[in-house]
Amino acid sequence: MKIAFIGLGNMGAPMARNLIKAGHALNLFDLNQAVLKELAELGGSISGSPRDAATGAELVITMLPAAAHVRSVWLGEDGVLAGIGQGVPAVDCSTIDPQTIRDVAAAAAKQGVAVADAPVSGGTGGAQAGTLTFMVGASADLFATLQPVLAQMGRNIVRCGDVGTGQIAKICNNLLLGISMVGVSEAMALGDALGIDTQVLAGIINSSTGRCWSSDTYNPWPGVIETAPSSRGYTGGFGADLMLKDLGLATEAARQAHQPVILGAVAQQLYQSMSQRGEGGKDFSAIINSYRKPK
Amino acid sequence: MKIAFIGLGNMGAPMARNLIKAGHALNLFDLNQAVLKELAELGGSISGSPRDAATGAELVITMLPAAAHVRSVWLGEDGVLAGIGQGVPAVDCSTIDPQTIRDVAAAAAKQGVAVADAPVSGGTGGAQAGTLTFMVGASADLFATLQPVLAQMGRNIVRCGDVGTGQIAKICNNLLLGISMVGVSEAMALGDALGIDTQVLAGIINSSTGRCWSSDTYNPWPGVIETAPSSRGYTGGFGADLMLKDLGLATEAARQAHQPVILGAVAQQLYQSMSQRGEGGKDFSAIINSYRKPK
Amino acid sequence: MKIAFIGLGNMGAPMARNLIKAGHALNLFDLNQAVLKELAELGGSISGSPRDAATGAELVITMLPAAAHVRSVWLGEDGVLAGIGQGVPAVDCSTIDPQTIRDVAAAAAKQGVAVADAPVSGGTGGAQAGTLTFMVGASADLFATLQPVLAQMGRNIVRCGDVGTGQIAKICNNLLLGISMVGVSEAMALGDALGIDTQVLAGIINSSTGRCWSSDTYNPWPGVIETAPSSRGYTGGFGADLMLKDLGLATEAARQAHQPVILGAVAQQLYQSMSQRGEGGKDFSAIINSYRKPK
Amino acid sequence: MKIAFIGLGNMGAPMARNLIKAGHALNLFDLNQAVLKELAELGGSISGSPRDAATGAELVITMLPAAAHVRSVWLGEDGVLAGIGQGVPAVDCSTIDPQTIRDVAAAAAKQGVAVADAPVSGGTGGAQAGTLTFMVGASADLFATLQPVLAQMGRNIVRCGDVGTGQIAKICNNLLLGISMVGVSEAMALGDALGIDTQVLAGIINSSTGRCWSSDTYNPWPGVIETAPSSRGYTGGFGADLMLKDLGLATEAARQAHQPVILGAVAQQLYQSMSQRGEGGKDFSAIINSYRKPK
Repeated sequence: MKIAFIGLGNMGAPMARNLIKAGHALNLFDLNQAVLKELAELGGSISGSPRDAATGAELVITMLPAAAHVRSVWLGEDGVLAGIGQGVPAVDCSTIDPQTIRDVAAAAAKQGVAVADAPVSGGTGGAQAGTLTFMVGASADLFATLQPVLAQMGRNIVRCGDVGTGQIAKICNNLLLGISMVGVSEAMALGDALGIDTQVLAGIINSSTGRCWSSDTYNPWPGVIETAPSSRGYTGGFGADLMLKDLGLATEAARQAHQPVILGAVAQQLYQSMSQRGEGGKDFSAIINSYRKPK
Repeated sequence: MKIAFIGLGNMGAPMARNLIKAGHALNLFDLNQAVLKELAELGGSISGSPRDAATGAELVITMLPAAAHVRSVWLGEDGVLAGIGQGVPAVDCSTIDPQTIRDVAAAAAKQGVAVADAPVSGGTGGAQAGTLTFMVGASADLFATLQPVLAQMGRNIVRCGDVGTGQIAKICNNLLLGISMVGVSEAMALGDALGIDTQVLAGIINSSTGRCWSSDTYNPWPGVIETAPSSRGYTGGFGADLMLKDLGLATEAARQAHQPVILGAVAQQLYQSMSQRGEGGKDFSAIINSYRKPK
Repeated sequence: MKIAFIGLGNMGAPMARNLIKAGHALNLFDLNQAVLKELAELGGSISGSPRDAATGAELVITMLPAAAHVRSVWLGEDGVLAGIGQGVPAVDCSTIDPQTIRDVAAAAAKQGVAVADAPVSGGTGGAQAGTLTFMVGASADLFATLQPVLAQMGRNIVRCGDVGTGQIAKICNNLLLGISMVGVSEAMALGDALGIDTQVLAGIINSSTGRCWSSDTYNPWPGVIETAPSSRGYTGGFGADLMLKDLGLATEAARQAHQPVILGAVAQQLYQSMSQRGEGGKDFSAIINSYRKPK
Repeated sequence: MKIAFIGLGNMGAPMARNLIKAGHALNLFDLNQAVLKELAELGGSISGSPRDAATGAELVITMLPAAAHVRSVWLGEDGVLAGIGQGVPAVDCSTIDPQTIRDVAAAAAKQGVAVADAPVSGGTGGAQAGTLTFMVGASADLFATLQPVLAQMGRNIVRCGDVGTGQIAKICNNLLLGISMVGVSEAMALGDALGIDTQVLAGIINSSTGRCWSSDTYNPWPGVIETAPSSRGYTGGFGADLMLKDLGLATEAARQAHQPVILGAVAQQLYQSMSQRGEGGKDFSAIINSYRKPK
């Protein structure tokens, strides 16, 4: 299948690599020439613009850092919509606000193109291993078309509803995740300060009503979960600055929807403080250090 | 076994009933004559004071509403310590602050009595069915002695460490629970406001990193979990005023330990607002209504 | 003086009226034909676009609802910059984010036009009475040029620094105002709940360290300050939805500057809750009702 | 006048000294022998217990660190009520919760003694200079009796209502003060991050609606107010740990009154974090450092 793939960063490059391995012919576009060259050696062909990449493609995929890039890559003069053929399926895998992708989809619909949103979770590790989760906002028909290709880059391909709902699912989940991690940090740090063994406390929480992914799989207290970033110096996980970006999307979407999100707004500011102290590159579970007495 | 059981409220009465059924002889004390009479008819004998109940007992159990009652029942002139024999095991099942039970245990130790704390979770339903969880703070020896009796009132009997750690485990778990429920409420209400189906959203969260007991077992959105209080008008679960009490214990213990608990403090105030509006008797998951547009 | 005035809403219309009264010749533009007609009858002349209004003017003033309008009115095909003459002074009085006006000023500078920002405080009453405060971001030279004209619409004309600093001053002040009003509300409601007379409490606060404008001039408790909106049913002041807009600007500017604003973020969500309950049209001091037991 | 003065710490000692200077005969009690000796040399006489000090006194004054001390000094076996004569006026100047002083006053009333509360503001500097503010909770008669003596230790003697209202006034004022200082810190730090001169920003706030004591008299940004602790390294003012104590009293009184205080609870936790980092001895305005990028 002839696929345009635009945006070859830390996530996009390994995703494109998996599609090449699966036998697809890729039209590649990115501003980074080094990564283009590297992927071209694996068999992809380099395009001069999103428009060129989309021209003649049977499917268009984009994976970009933020809403401004999505707008320009899709709607710009040399953008995807200037090249894509009528009826060609298209999907944006960026994590952005729901409104932007709905705007892009509305513009595309005018020329007979259906666009889906399909933000991912699973990080760069999941992108390389092809085990990402895709949260897809698309009509049932478009989902059916996209599903087999997405499955070559990921393990769980979930339809969330119509276009935009992929973003909504992701930001709502990550809003809760950001809150839960702070909650677990407060509970573990309080338990330690009051004198209970943290391993014992985690065990009780994990078999009780406080149980959550942030406690039983990714506990922020070092040593509780051997495979968690907290047990290796808060490296190699989901960076606090990425959590901050997602909480920013959540609170901004909430603002536009006139919806209060009190704990979410506080959690955002706490990660912001952590980032301001120069720790935004650490795993987000290092937020627990905001609660522990400095040694 | 001759057991003194003091405090026969909504939790204590069914617990005592289970011990009578298991064949123990109970010395009962409470200020409520009606419940005393009822339990006496099942075979218990009525005592005139905590001191009388404790005198000659082989084990003392108390289940009281708050720290002030614990202090007076144990340390008062006619209290347990005035009657209990040296070496008799004793356990307080109330949910109170860790410091009070440590003070009681220290006073008891001076007369050769070891006291454990063993707050429970599971509610009145669990008390009746004998399926409570006991979080026990006790020496290994005392735990070994208490375990068989507690197992006649509950299903999970967990040792958390020395005296006081049962309370610590409970308040840390419930601190996290209180936060998680608000977090799930914000995520579900935001998703709904942005236009995703709430059943779909819950499904995605529950198989992703936002997964938690408040979402997958006790989801606050009506209809998501058929067995949750949210699906029956927020009745019959864990009342918001009880959550408020536990968050009060957590933030007060944090204050004494010089430990910040930011989201916990905000969550406490949100349940307080709910209670002030007259909804403290509803299940605590009704906090989601603070986030939903009134109809 | 020939002045282009663009944006004739609740604030812009009375401001333009004051300039006409002061003897200036106005080129008027707005989408609302009724208000154009009304002002034309006072002596202004109607333009067909921002571009037309700016053409030949000796000064350009805009007063618009949000950043998107500012961008399109200034930078659009038929925008101000397409018509304005080189060296003509210009000022935007809208309340928007600092970055947008800096972008507009940078674009204008390329064609030899200096743009100032001058957001106002004082509300529609101040606009009518000509008693507004202007917080001006402009070079010293441009400020000197603008000052006499702004003084025909306002009483305090304050230079805050270079372009953008007017917005910064306004959003920082209003961030603090939004927080202070919630703080006063919490203090007054707590005092009342604990049993002190609220008039006495306000008197003590106002002569002590809690003293602030939200307490001594605009107290949210009805009857404490006879001239405050709280004493007339929370009508006719600064609407909660306007405060919500300004707090949204503040937290978004903070996000872009990687700066935490914890209480500000919480306050924003509290006004959001008030607005969600349908009370966004009331004066922002009605936030105190979120803290008072419903009758 | 024969006055019993109990509690001679950092505040009590200079207050007692001022009464001795004014010509009163003092019965002194404290656990600290050094300060007793020092004051005895000025002319006071040392008592062996609060009871002894109160015996024969024409007025009793206490100034103690916390509620537990107040209870034991007044209600203990060797306490004030065991020695005080019927009809002798009495006043506690400690800063504690309103309920404790109401309990003490109720006990005293049974033996014909009227007790007032009169917490102070003004710090150790005000205590030495005799310029304290006394917030008095007392009947009009008792206030009239106490006023001349309090005026020998302070400048503003304000009646707040009946017993307990002095404490209420103080904790409500300090709740607002704690919030305001955080609010000013957020506004100043945000302004600085966005690029406005902080001196200019403070000037605008102080002549606008953000105006408050924390900004115009005690601004946390170094150099804005020359006489503020921020301009001398955050030394010599009102320590963060004292603010933390008062916010603890406020949120605990709110809890007992079933009254939410959301920003107050967050502010308490922020000062708690500051204290946990080892900065509780600095002036409370140093909370601004939690918002500034570390250098």
